[in-house]
Amino acid sequence: MAAKASDIKLLKKYISKGWEFHIIEMLHDLKPVEIAELIEALDEESRGKLFLLLDVDTASEVISELSSDSRDDVLDDISDTELARIVEDMDSDDAVDLVGDLHDERAERVLAAMDPRESSEIRNLLIYPEDTAGGIMQREMVSVTPGATIDEVIALIRQQAPEVNDIHNVFIIDHQGRLKGIVPLVNLILSKPDTRISQIMDTDPISVPVDMDQEDVTRLFKKYDSVVLPVVDRENRLLGRITVDDIVDIIDEEATEDMFMLAGADEDLLSSSILKNASTRIPWLFICWLGGVLNSFLIKGFESHLSQLVGLAAFMPIILGMGGNVGSQSVTLIVRGIATGGVSTTDFLKIVGKQLGVGAILGCMYGAMLGAITFLIYPGNPKMSLVVGLSIFNSMTIATLVGTILPIIFFKIGKDPAVASGPFMSTAMDLIGVVAYFGIAVLLIF
Amino acid sequence: MAAKASDIKLLKKYISKGWEFHIIEMLHDLKPVEIAELIEALDEESRGKLFLLLDVDTASEVISELSSDSRDDVLDDISDTELARIVEDMDSDDAVDLVGDLHDERAERVLAAMDPRESSEIRNLLIYPEDTAGGIMQREMVSVTPGATIDEVIALIRQQAPEVNDIHNVFIIDHQGRLKGIVPLVNLILSKPDTRISQIMDTDPISVPVDMDQEDVTRLFKKYDSVVLPVVDRENRLLGRITVDDIVDIIDEEATEDMFMLAGADEDLLSSSILKNASTRIPWLFICWLGGVLNSFLIKGFESHLSQLVGLAAFMPIILGMGGNVGSQSVTLIVRGIATGGVSTTDFLKIVGKQLGVGAILGCMYGAMLGAITFLIYPGNPKMSLVVGLSIFNSMTIATLVGTILPIIFFKIGKDPAVASGPFMSTAMDLIGVVAYFGIAVLLIF
Repeated sequence: MAAKASDIKLLKKYISKGWEFHIIEMLHDLKPVEIAELIEALDEESRGKLFLLLDVDTASEVISELSSDSRDDVLDDISDTELARIVEDMDSDDAVDLVGDLHDERAERVLAAMDPRESSEIRNLLIYPEDTAGGIMQREMVSVTPGATIDEVIALIRQQAPEVNDIHNVFIIDHQGRLKGIVPLVNLILSKPDTRISQIMDTDPISVPVDMDQEDVTRLFKKYDSVVLPVVDRENRLLGRITVDDIVDIIDEEATEDMFMLAGADEDLLSSSILKNASTRIPWLFICWLGGVLNSFLIKGFESHLSQLVGLAAFMPIILGMGGNVGSQSVTLIVRGIATGGVSTTDFLKIVGKQLGVGAILGCMYGAMLGAITFLIYPGNPKMSLVVGLSIFNSMTIATLVGTILPIIFFKIGKDPAVASGPFMSTAMDLIGVVAYFGIAVLLIF
Repeated sequence: MAAKASDIKLLKKYISKGWEFHIIEMLHDLKPVEIAELIEALDEESRGKLFLLLDVDTASEVISELSSDSRDDVLDDISDTELARIVEDMDSDDAVDLVGDLHDERAERVLAAMDPRESSEIRNLLIYPEDTAGGIMQREMVSVTPGATIDEVIALIRQQAPEVNDIHNVFIIDHQGRLKGIVPLVNLILSKPDTRISQIMDTDPISVPVDMDQEDVTRLFKKYDSVVLPVVDRENRLLGRITVDDIVDIIDEEATEDMFMLAGADEDLLSSSILKNASTRIPWLFICWLGGVLNSFLIKGFESHLSQLVGLAAFMPIILGMGGNVGSQSVTLIVRGIATGGVSTTDFLKIVGKQLGVGAILGCMYGAMLGAITFLIYPGNPKMSLVVGLSIFNSMTIATLVGTILPIIFFKIGKDPAVASGPFMSTAMDLIGVVAYFGIAVLLIF
């Protein structure tokens, strides 16, 4: 999906020769996202040069498609006044993201250089937390009062079309600004010009409370297969709208976030430097490392037993590994179930009971199998076989249980369930597994 | 997001008393997805009863919202002729999914009972693999020739609106059916009635090849923020269209699939029975178990060394655990990077080099720390400290490398990169870690 190598080569040639006319001609046929991809492929210096050749209209669309690195390069090269013109032309949701990422001082200067009406709109939007409906909505939309005729609505759309992108429907509000209904564009086309819009509107539209968490907003879009949803305050006043393209990005973001959390890394590390990459992973691994050190001390505590029966050591990795793996499976199952809505709020006990059953079945099976193998290796010591079998059963059952309950608890207390991640789980399971293994061994053998 | 408990209670009461009129009145105000949620909450027998009360129009929308369990219950209760009417009324993409899931014989009977034009459309769509553009597209759309005026297009939309849901744009095709352009609805509204559609169309529309993998289709939608994309064959003939609501579902599905793969489970197990749940997890765990058994034999091979220096056993879990964790992190990073397009095809070597650097830094750090701690525990044996430190460095570096390369290799040979899953990784790392640990110990100590 990246820009074509031949295009990039050509563009670099044009830039080095300073052939601006050729560059402008080349960019003319491209969509904003494609221009953004070309900019990504350039070096720091050329990025700004290329961007300055774009007209305000194109620039405002290209800039929201850039990665944060390239965006910073481009922003360094343009003046506050130029940036103000570009921001004015952006959809308000993208404009807020951009202004929100600027240093406070520059943000202030850019806002001051903007049309006061536009800047106050952005100031109003900056209030909402980034990951709520308010933080992702845009103010641009077409809204009319119930008395308007189709003809009047079409005239209004014609007037607003230059400013509002992606018009999919018209919102109907009363004089207090309260949402009364929605009409998709196709129904405008199908109705007679003198029909009043109130006669054809859906009077029970789905709407999004402005403080709803963005993950819940994605669930609403999925449930109702929506393309656009209106955002309202507590008095049902229409504040803005959310479009599905932003929802698609958020679904991706949230899934990535959950996956990285589960693996014990907390942001997209592919594009960052080696040091940044390593340092982001250090805290998670440090918890595992601490757990591991603690475990070493625990095992050392059983050193006298181990030296009497050194064969016990041979089964440690499998007992800990099976627990860790089955526990991570359960965590993933629950975390994903919560994210996609498959785990509803009512049947937690049922889920826990079921997973406990699953863990017990798996533990019995693999415990019996390992017990049998142990008996083959140590035919003179049937107790050892029993200890090993029981320990696998024990670690798998407990791991399934903990891996199920832990993310549910995190979810219930309002934390991200993915915090109960794989590394966290496997470290916890290592500790429980070692104590149980040697505990059972001491009880039955020594 | 589930149905309200009070609604379910009321509905169950109505069903038990046989008050059909009340049920119909209750369902009247609900959207199809909400009716589907109520059906999910009922027992097997009531599901069919409720479904039979719906008119064909509603039934055709409700049935595509049901989970496979409830859908099977409902399908058991309706005749082939009734089902044929419902399928005729469904969007063709949903109809194909439904018919494709029926037993071959019943599918044949239902298709035979349908209007021949409708059934042949479905037969044509059944040809395409489920996870390609052809498998997810629908045939319902509005297409016109370039010479049509806006007035004529609007008349056509009016005529087709009862059959085509969610009209967002009009496709323009020539007499050979080749895609020539696209016009969003809003541009129809903005143009004069006697304008020819060719004058306002986007003549370079994004289109999807019919055999494109559905994951690549989602990338196109994300890149161009599309709501609808046309599907074409190799001669650029328009075959159908894909709408963004299906893309949202696919993005979710693919992320879930990757996550479960990474955790070593291969389908959504929350709704399945304990036995099914356990049996799906058995094969993955069996590979881990086999690896663990092999590992036990390896360790047993070093038994004589272990009995001389039993303290070696205490560090096994931490050496294996750190390798497994850091390896799973790398696998997740790469798998997600491939899925979201962040890992492009050109810079694999760069990514591998970077991850190797990250692994080495992390390995140095945690190796040095554990070496120091070992020295505190065994001050008389500095070699032991060296062995433990080197082994952590070794297992973390190798794990990062393997965790990066393995998913890339799977991807390159056309397999799902997520197959290089966490459990797989940690088992492989256990084996490598044990051999390296005892190998280093034998070399340096004995």
